[in-house]
Amino acid sequence: MGKSFNFNLKIYYEDTDAGGVVYYANYLKFLERARSEAIYKLGYTNTGLKKDFGVVIMVKHCNIEYKKPIFFEDNITIISKLKNIKRTSFIMYQEIKKDNELLSSADVCLVCVNLNGKPTRIPENLENLLRDFIH
Amino acid sequence: MGKSFNFNLKIYYEDTDAGGVVYYANYLKFLERARSEAIYKLGYTNTGLKKDFGVVIMVKHCNIEYKKPIFFEDNITIISKLKNIKRTSFIMYQEIKKDNELLSSADVCLVCVNLNGKPTRIPENLENLLRDFIH
Amino acid sequence: MGKSFNFNLKIYYEDTDAGGVVYYANYLKFLERARSEAIYKLGYTNTGLKKDFGVVIMVKHCNIEYKKPIFFEDNITIISKLKNIKRTSFIMYQEIKKDNELLSSADVCLVCVNLNGKPTRIPENLENLLRDFIH
Amino acid sequence: MGKSFNFNLKIYYEDTDAGGVVYYANYLKFLERARSEAIYKLGYTNTGLKKDFGVVIMVKHCNIEYKKPIFFEDNITIISKLKNIKRTSFIMYQEIKKDNELLSSADVCLVCVNLNGKPTRIPENLENLLRDFIH
Repeated sequence: MGKSFNFNLKIYYEDTDAGGVVYYANYLKFLERARSEAIYKLGYTNTGLKKDFGVVIMVKHCNIEYKKPIFFEDNITIISKLKNIKRTSFIMYQEIKKDNELLSSADVCLVCVNLNGKPTRIPENLENLLRDFIH
Repeated sequence: MGKSFNFNLKIYYEDTDAGGVVYYANYLKFLERARSEAIYKLGYTNTGLKKDFGVVIMVKHCNIEYKKPIFFEDNITIISKLKNIKRTSFIMYQEIKKDNELLSSADVCLVCVNLNGKPTRIPENLENLLRDFIH
Repeated sequence: MGKSFNFNLKIYYEDTDAGGVVYYANYLKFLERARSEAIYKLGYTNTGLKKDFGVVIMVKHCNIEYKKPIFFEDNITIISKLKNIKRTSFIMYQEIKKDNELLSSADVCLVCVNLNGKPTRIPENLENLLRDFIH
Repeated sequence: MGKSFNFNLKIYYEDTDAGGVVYYANYLKFLERARSEAIYKLGYTNTGLKKDFGVVIMVKHCNIEYKKPIFFEDNITIISKLKNIKRTSFIMYQEIKKDNELLSSADVCLVCVNLNGKPTRIPENLENLLRDFIH
């Protein structure tokens, strides 16, 4: 049974639009914040991965479903898990919930690239740590 | 052979991130601008659809692929077509190109909802106009 | 000697631009998040102020100085104080610091408006609580 | 009598917030787009200034007044002029108008820095072109 990363955030004015709910592109910001916080929890930073390993983690594909609207000043949780991991890429499954109600879910395919933008091996120790989050 | 909506835009500082390229969430802003411009070209506005028909068009699902990075000050084109249209929803296929090179593509499922957020019939005349864009 | 509200945040990709630093408009997002958190700490919410008192707090004026750049993955603190408070408006002085180094400072004039957008009295209890933050 | 740069834009969902109007930080995005378009009209790009002259133009100070709200799907114009220009910096005065009604105005102090972030001389030809926009 894999682990999960949980990340909480609150909805500010900047996140919403004239429809009175969170603007659909901003969900992807929340997912990215949650992924960065996961990296930090594992003892890495994006800056460090670039400097120490010459790699950057990029989004190749994002498949997101908007199930229920998110409102101004809501408190939400992003739950992030791994679906699988390969040599140079991995797929995360991320859910946005409020009080255990599922508001949105996404499959996000991430690829590890070198400084020329070419797919490259995920740093080995990071890969091992990520394996614990496979479900 | 269906019609297409073409929409051009230029990449400003606000669109980019510290990676030197367009931030992945901002692609969804560009797609939405292109869809709004399509609505205007057909003689409607989002404000008018809400006021005159009591409907709002919302994104239910977005499946986007990031093929090549988009850079600061690039000039890009968003090409928008329809995949299909039903009573209350339609699927758009949108491409982002620079000089005919495909940088990104997305399937976006949109649903027409009433002011209570319930799926409701797309205004008939709008539906008919959209049909010309089915490929 | 007045109190201060302190609010910490971390810089994500979404906050930065192709210059490698935080995009200048995004400083205003941070200032607004800090002001909202201050409202929460005092026992109010923006949603509650609107529903219970029929008021919204809006920015009328913002005078911001960018002293030093803020970098990707920096941890920063927003320190918020009051310069003065009148019947319908107040001026906040907000600083952005990293490890006690001042990166940016701003005077922000906020006005309390009713649902027609007209300046109106700040709810009395909120005004009293805010007075403790005058420096 | 100095020249002006005029730049038109339309308000999309992304620009607005749950208050139903343009979010206050986004005004600064519009001002920056207008300044970039001014640079293009003068025959330069930000990318070219960096590559050919080793300089970047950064905002040091922004003093903005929010006079009237801007609404979803509004068409607005940004009018940009110069207040003065010195060896390494210049002050722009920018107005946001809708149908000649003034919605917002800002003084923006910009500084030309080299790749180490140090203030440096504005490229001479650009400085001369900018002088025509002093009012």
